[in-house]
Amino acid sequence: MQGNFKYSNPTKLYFGKDSLSFLKEELKNYGPKVMLSYGGGSIKRNGIYDAVVNILKQEGKTVIDDGGVMSNPTVEKLYEGAAKAKENAVDLILAVGGGSTIDYAKGVAASAYCETDPWQTYYIEQKDPVCKIIPVGSILTMVGTGSEMNGGSVISNHTAKFKGGKVFGENNMPKFSILNPEFTFTVPTYQMVAGFFDIMSHIMEQYFSSDGDNTTDYLAEGLMRSLIHSSLIAVKDPKDYEARSNIMWTATWALNTLLKKGKKGDWMVHMIGHAISAHTNATHGMTLASVSIPYYKYVLDGGISQFKKFAINVWGVNPEGKDDRQIASEGIDCLEKWMKEIGVVMHSSELGVKEDNIEAIADSTVIYHTDFYPLERKDIIEILQRSM
Amino acid sequence: MQGNFKYSNPTKLYFGKDSLSFLKEELKNYGPKVMLSYGGGSIKRNGIYDAVVNILKQEGKTVIDDGGVMSNPTVEKLYEGAAKAKENAVDLILAVGGGSTIDYAKGVAASAYCETDPWQTYYIEQKDPVCKIIPVGSILTMVGTGSEMNGGSVISNHTAKFKGGKVFGENNMPKFSILNPEFTFTVPTYQMVAGFFDIMSHIMEQYFSSDGDNTTDYLAEGLMRSLIHSSLIAVKDPKDYEARSNIMWTATWALNTLLKKGKKGDWMVHMIGHAISAHTNATHGMTLASVSIPYYKYVLDGGISQFKKFAINVWGVNPEGKDDRQIASEGIDCLEKWMKEIGVVMHSSELGVKEDNIEAIADSTVIYHTDFYPLERKDIIEILQRSM
Repeated sequence: MQGNFKYSNPTKLYFGKDSLSFLKEELKNYGPKVMLSYGGGSIKRNGIYDAVVNILKQEGKTVIDDGGVMSNPTVEKLYEGAAKAKENAVDLILAVGGGSTIDYAKGVAASAYCETDPWQTYYIEQKDPVCKIIPVGSILTMVGTGSEMNGGSVISNHTAKFKGGKVFGENNMPKFSILNPEFTFTVPTYQMVAGFFDIMSHIMEQYFSSDGDNTTDYLAEGLMRSLIHSSLIAVKDPKDYEARSNIMWTATWALNTLLKKGKKGDWMVHMIGHAISAHTNATHGMTLASVSIPYYKYVLDGGISQFKKFAINVWGVNPEGKDDRQIASEGIDCLEKWMKEIGVVMHSSELGVKEDNIEAIADSTVIYHTDFYPLERKDIIEILQRSM
Repeated sequence: MQGNFKYSNPTKLYFGKDSLSFLKEELKNYGPKVMLSYGGGSIKRNGIYDAVVNILKQEGKTVIDDGGVMSNPTVEKLYEGAAKAKENAVDLILAVGGGSTIDYAKGVAASAYCETDPWQTYYIEQKDPVCKIIPVGSILTMVGTGSEMNGGSVISNHTAKFKGGKVFGENNMPKFSILNPEFTFTVPTYQMVAGFFDIMSHIMEQYFSSDGDNTTDYLAEGLMRSLIHSSLIAVKDPKDYEARSNIMWTATWALNTLLKKGKKGDWMVHMIGHAISAHTNATHGMTLASVSIPYYKYVLDGGISQFKKFAINVWGVNPEGKDDRQIASEGIDCLEKWMKEIGVVMHSSELGVKEDNIEAIADSTVIYHTDFYPLERKDIIEILQRSM
């Protein structure tokens, strides 16, 4: 475990088939005005909306409706939600949905009383809130982002062709999150599978940086093995409770800061994926899937020992009679095979990326710390071309 | 992930070589009177005591000295500490030491203002505190119990020959814990190795119950693999920072409720170990080691599939050409081989257990839920006899 770090996580999780029953108890901690943020009509069709509104009414809450949160929530919607939350002086924002809705709720929570432009302040300048933050609770209906137990918030500015991410502090993390695996049963296959890959990508982004022997890597390997196993069951039978519950729990622990401890991290697949989304509005997890194999093949030689460990410990590659590069490379082949089995998008061209907007996507890509390969703009272009 | 559960953990962890520097900031959250609880003279010899007292004085705190916490802290010491904490109206109990000291501090924190007998109320009747609880902080100098991030508190009543464990709630968990792996470098080999086995036992107690496919099992396997790897390095070179830091982090996550999620758990090795300690005052981790192999061989047939998973995923046993029982059994053989390599006590007779007190030890053993084998008193006697 390298370096010095702090670990703490204030989010309370309620997990299981009966977890919504804990909402009542949690609501007692907040004032009467609850802004209910959610996406399209799906939670109205599957009954979750009615179940939640009933509990809110039983507890005497005034519900401020805030539907219509889109996937890749926009800066315009952020402004609208912040104004609504402030006007109504809401005591709690209850986000019912997937990562987009919860990311949005965290953004609104920090924006309502922000005296400067929140997009500029948080998502561009990466400053921390100095204003009052509205408490957020979440009821998760789609799995992948880990937004239910972290401070992350990603908002899209389509005019600027930029998807901006901000990691807020503990004060802005959900106070509680309700995780009922059955609430994820009705998610369409495309979104479900995109979520599965998002989880895998979160783990890989943190795993694929080189920091010696580290307990965190063993935890990451365990979570990847669990995800691979359960995802193959879930794509055949989306209502398999055991598989869906394991995936839900894995998603939460994949990105709640535990897997970051003692690691540098990479996050370049996310940076390229965000840039693709900003230009195409494609589903987040699929943007990651479309560039992962070209990306990892591109940087492989800078991280042979870590990719070798991945191949053996995660995929069970037999190392006998092979050199390190061959073993490492077989791990990426196994990843590719699994991605095809669960059915993710393997080419960015399928998401609307065209030869003539590759340069613009590269320009929208934020280049982070890269441990295995010192990436430049030309490398991003090359990776994007190989992803087509 | 079976069942419904809640997860939250309020303890803030500061980890790394410079983690003591965060004490200053934490102390600002508490009033001026700090009771400093610690064990024998070791923290005075290695400089940790002076470093801590200097920070307390710089922050203007009044230090109430509470040294002499013994391993297997006694009910008499608990009463003494509780009286001292109340008399001095302390604002914070700062425990500097290993699990014994932190377990004791949590007990004192809940006992100082308890209006009934705390031993009877908490450790026998298993009631929860209804009185004011004094905040506890910890600085960990010995690794194993996980007491730094949980509510556990074990106190020994030598008159009654009973070691009683109470798991307190979140209000009584350390508010913060400082984990500097270098602070563990001077722990004597016997105690260090006992701690390593305590960690392994915590993981196995939770892993060895059968609950289908479960993400928690994959995390447990990762932690066991990390521990096995690092412990073999640490016994050769106790000052190997990488190994000791991995072990310290593994110990914390082995028993902070994460590995319990979706699992029933077993805890019978701890129950027998506690009974041995109550009669011999032997070191906790060594009591667990002395009965583990006989215990697991005894219950093996009730949990073949879980022991098989353990053999393959934790120890890399090659399953080819073997039946399930053979594979499962080889896992226990690997465990035994590792225990001998790190040098734990393999026989309870070495800890002072004699043929003629086996029955009394069995009488002191609390029989919990057992998933693989419905244990009775006669089985405990048989296991103890095989452990001699």
